[in-house]
Amino acid sequence: MVSAVVTPAVGAEGSDGPRVLPPGMSEAAFERVLDAFEAIVGAPNVCRGGASLEPYFDPFMPAADPHAFAPSAALLPASAEEIRAVLRVANEARVPLWTVSTGRNFAYGGAAPRLAGSVVLDLQRMNRVLAVDERLAYALVEPGVSYFDLYTHLRDGGYRLWIDPPAAGWGSVMGNTLERGFGTTAYGDHAATLCGMEIVLANGDVVRTGMGGIETGTAWQLYRSGYGPAFDALFTQSNYGIVTKMGLWLMPAPPAFVLGEVQMPGEQDLAALVDTLRPLQLDGTIRNHAAIEGAIRRAAGIAPRSRWFDGAGPMPEAAVEAMQRDLGIGRWNLHFALYGVPEVIEAQQRVVERAFHALPGARISTQRYAAGDEPQGGGDRNLAGIPAMSAFRMLDWRGGEGAHVDFSPLCPADGRDAMRQYMLVKSRAAEYGFDYYGGFTAAGRHLHHVFAAIFARERRDDAARAGDLLRALMSDARAAGYGVYRSHLLYMDYAAAQYSFNDGALLRLAQTLKDALDPQGVLSPGKQGIWPGRLRGERGYT
Amino acid sequence: MVSAVVTPAVGAEGSDGPRVLPPGMSEAAFERVLDAFEAIVGAPNVCRGGASLEPYFDPFMPAADPHAFAPSAALLPASAEEIRAVLRVANEARVPLWTVSTGRNFAYGGAAPRLAGSVVLDLQRMNRVLAVDERLAYALVEPGVSYFDLYTHLRDGGYRLWIDPPAAGWGSVMGNTLERGFGTTAYGDHAATLCGMEIVLANGDVVRTGMGGIETGTAWQLYRSGYGPAFDALFTQSNYGIVTKMGLWLMPAPPAFVLGEVQMPGEQDLAALVDTLRPLQLDGTIRNHAAIEGAIRRAAGIAPRSRWFDGAGPMPEAAVEAMQRDLGIGRWNLHFALYGVPEVIEAQQRVVERAFHALPGARISTQRYAAGDEPQGGGDRNLAGIPAMSAFRMLDWRGGEGAHVDFSPLCPADGRDAMRQYMLVKSRAAEYGFDYYGGFTAAGRHLHHVFAAIFARERRDDAARAGDLLRALMSDARAAGYGVYRSHLLYMDYAAAQYSFNDGALLRLAQTLKDALDPQGVLSPGKQGIWPGRLRGERGYT
Repeated sequence: MVSAVVTPAVGAEGSDGPRVLPPGMSEAAFERVLDAFEAIVGAPNVCRGGASLEPYFDPFMPAADPHAFAPSAALLPASAEEIRAVLRVANEARVPLWTVSTGRNFAYGGAAPRLAGSVVLDLQRMNRVLAVDERLAYALVEPGVSYFDLYTHLRDGGYRLWIDPPAAGWGSVMGNTLERGFGTTAYGDHAATLCGMEIVLANGDVVRTGMGGIETGTAWQLYRSGYGPAFDALFTQSNYGIVTKMGLWLMPAPPAFVLGEVQMPGEQDLAALVDTLRPLQLDGTIRNHAAIEGAIRRAAGIAPRSRWFDGAGPMPEAAVEAMQRDLGIGRWNLHFALYGVPEVIEAQQRVVERAFHALPGARISTQRYAAGDEPQGGGDRNLAGIPAMSAFRMLDWRGGEGAHVDFSPLCPADGRDAMRQYMLVKSRAAEYGFDYYGGFTAAGRHLHHVFAAIFARERRDDAARAGDLLRALMSDARAAGYGVYRSHLLYMDYAAAQYSFNDGALLRLAQTLKDALDPQGVLSPGKQGIWPGRLRGERGYT
Repeated sequence: MVSAVVTPAVGAEGSDGPRVLPPGMSEAAFERVLDAFEAIVGAPNVCRGGASLEPYFDPFMPAADPHAFAPSAALLPASAEEIRAVLRVANEARVPLWTVSTGRNFAYGGAAPRLAGSVVLDLQRMNRVLAVDERLAYALVEPGVSYFDLYTHLRDGGYRLWIDPPAAGWGSVMGNTLERGFGTTAYGDHAATLCGMEIVLANGDVVRTGMGGIETGTAWQLYRSGYGPAFDALFTQSNYGIVTKMGLWLMPAPPAFVLGEVQMPGEQDLAALVDTLRPLQLDGTIRNHAAIEGAIRRAAGIAPRSRWFDGAGPMPEAAVEAMQRDLGIGRWNLHFALYGVPEVIEAQQRVVERAFHALPGARISTQRYAAGDEPQGGGDRNLAGIPAMSAFRMLDWRGGEGAHVDFSPLCPADGRDAMRQYMLVKSRAAEYGFDYYGGFTAAGRHLHHVFAAIFARERRDDAARAGDLLRALMSDARAAGYGVYRSHLLYMDYAAAQYSFNDGALLRLAQTLKDALDPQGVLSPGKQGIWPGRLRGERGYT
């Protein structure tokens, strides 16, 4: 009976409520499995419950029940060999393993598993930078390497290479890249910098992709595709294997750079801003992933919301305008960067300034830097390849213990689409009592639109309302022809179902491959809406 | 008995020798299958043999037997619906279909199938340009659209968009892109310009990848990855499905451009040339796929070999030097391009010239062009986004009916590796009596090294020797840590076997997916060394 299988089993009451077990498993059987895991990774590296398991719950859960995605246990293996041994046990006992590199993207569920009762396989102990090559500008990293780690490794080694940090520098380089996160330098499209993987498949087979198939080869981190079908992208946002090594391209440290901001005063100016930026990106003048911050997100880095408004609903228009005036910020604030030889970026700067000065009301400020200069402020530091945690402080915008859940629809890099998405999100968010806290990151032909519903995590009603808002936004966006590029655990099935062409052919393809690569269904069941055969068809799982 | 299955059946004698049938199939059964195909695509679109089937044999076969990869028939469907109907028949009868977009890359086998007796599924009648968007700079094409077709379509429509032509402009845009071909503009990495596919799977299911899953969506050609695992790359160099629509990004026509050549006199200068170019590409100064032509390939566009040497073996060193002097060319000839606003490319040009002038003996020439200017000469026209067929004329280098087969190892973008590969290829080619006719195309961290063994197709001994040389080169390269990115039909298994890490884990993964997606094994068996389950394990198939 399928429903019996997928219902997490409930064991003896723990300090935080009933113990959650893998679906269909008795407490005694699970204890034997954990003993087997302990024999592989060592007792200190198995979290059986209590405080040690707390980091594996969703820290920002956007629903009334903060434990809906409760793990049964967590394991911290130290090597691919240990992972292979863990997989043998998991396949035999059919225990679902939810793999995280470090699990630090709190907006999408942190380290918590989609399927309650899964055992979290946390790879944070595998944290070596295995190779760095300055001439060819790449690194090879393990899952546990954070952006801070890699930054420090490069700085201490004297390598003239930059990283592209995401908003929060504590995240795993591999985790962020596999989930197709992004940053704001010229290497902001993280999936596009991925080159070569080592993967442990569910059956324990260890595969090296691309040129990694050539033993003692020379080009694993230099050419993505190899010979035959190219597999790297198949293992992004996926539950088809456990990636244990990943190559990534790094940006050579530029001899000089310019950081610039273009502020536009009015809400409607977004369209012109997008339409002016697009050709500058498409022709290679602006090579960075330029961020367009809405006024509220821009302000959150500077002052608390209560300075202008302390009510329960969304900030009124007049308060937003007062805030813009007080802080000297735009309703939209574009951050661009130019990297290179001084005489080239000076010419590019003139081209960029001419283009934006043509927009009525635009205010442009720029700052030049030489190699080694460090800008101040988290956003600008990110643009200079320096990781920061300032994005987290911005969550204090509404007071309380700041948390957020993100809605991130893809948007064509067209002013009309950007305006349509903005108005859609703003009005629906207001209805649910949330400010438009968001912006766009521009990558040539598309924009990543990210709206964050900010709430205080201790207020469970607000959390649940944020979650409800997200579902409404996904539905609104889909009706207008837009889809999200990523989603919180709570909406993985819903997001997958939105990709419904030909009655869900894309998900059928994904499921066919899932069943071929993971016949016991032990790898991250439900991730991105992909369930193994034995868990499909019931309880709303597709 | 597996061997019986994979031996092509032989029917009644035709005008060109015995008729080849699909493995294990009687002539009568095959006739019934062809009748069923005729009912779907119409009699004029089924080639049952004779002259109509001639285009589906390998035109440049590098082996003694020109018919080793003989097709049994060819079909030309007009739509995805017809393909689905063809697949129903093929699955039921287990008839192998070898899909080609147009099959015009003669260096790797043309339209001929890997498995003799396969039916060629030729998609050249599906030749519509389905969409072009100038603002967002993309097109959506069917398989039969050639580079000439797309160029003409854009020119006639007044679109300010460029294509990136490969060496021979008659090739299919989709075919070249799916095989991961490349050109020489800033959009030279064709696989990197691919964005969104429609695929007919072996079971007839029609899938749209990436954002194409969003029906009546807005971003199919704008964002590659979509939600969940990204599939596009899986269907390149692959036999997992039949791609019927493909999105590709196009380069906005630049307001101005500079084409430049850097000539280096000596053989050893290759290393410095590569090491000077690499940082200029990595920092975005040179954005095009810069080609480094060896002297002989450079000369082949100008004069016949016999002017300097008419012997049987490779051209002696003294003759190559005389040729360089007479033609005013370098031993190595780098072609770069700068595209953009005049003041930016002028600054870039100064940076590039400073860098190459630091190399002793370098001769640099440049030419500026305004929007709409058309350079002369096939290579320069390619750099300006104009397709040509001049690469074909270069095959007349050695006289006779010029043919070639290509050896194309990936090379790190490091001077030492480039020199090592060059010396390795030159000396082994000389041993087999061939000139070093080749060069490198530089893409930042890697070089595509392409060596062409040129022979006269009517001299079967020369053809066979070219084929033998290729095998020797692949073996040499593998021993030095290099792998090919592509191969002729004759060496698909051998090339796949070179990717041997962990006892061939990469091929095992490829086979697992093959069996899941194409259980009857009807789609292009043996392509890139990937055989379906029923054809593996015997006769040297892996």
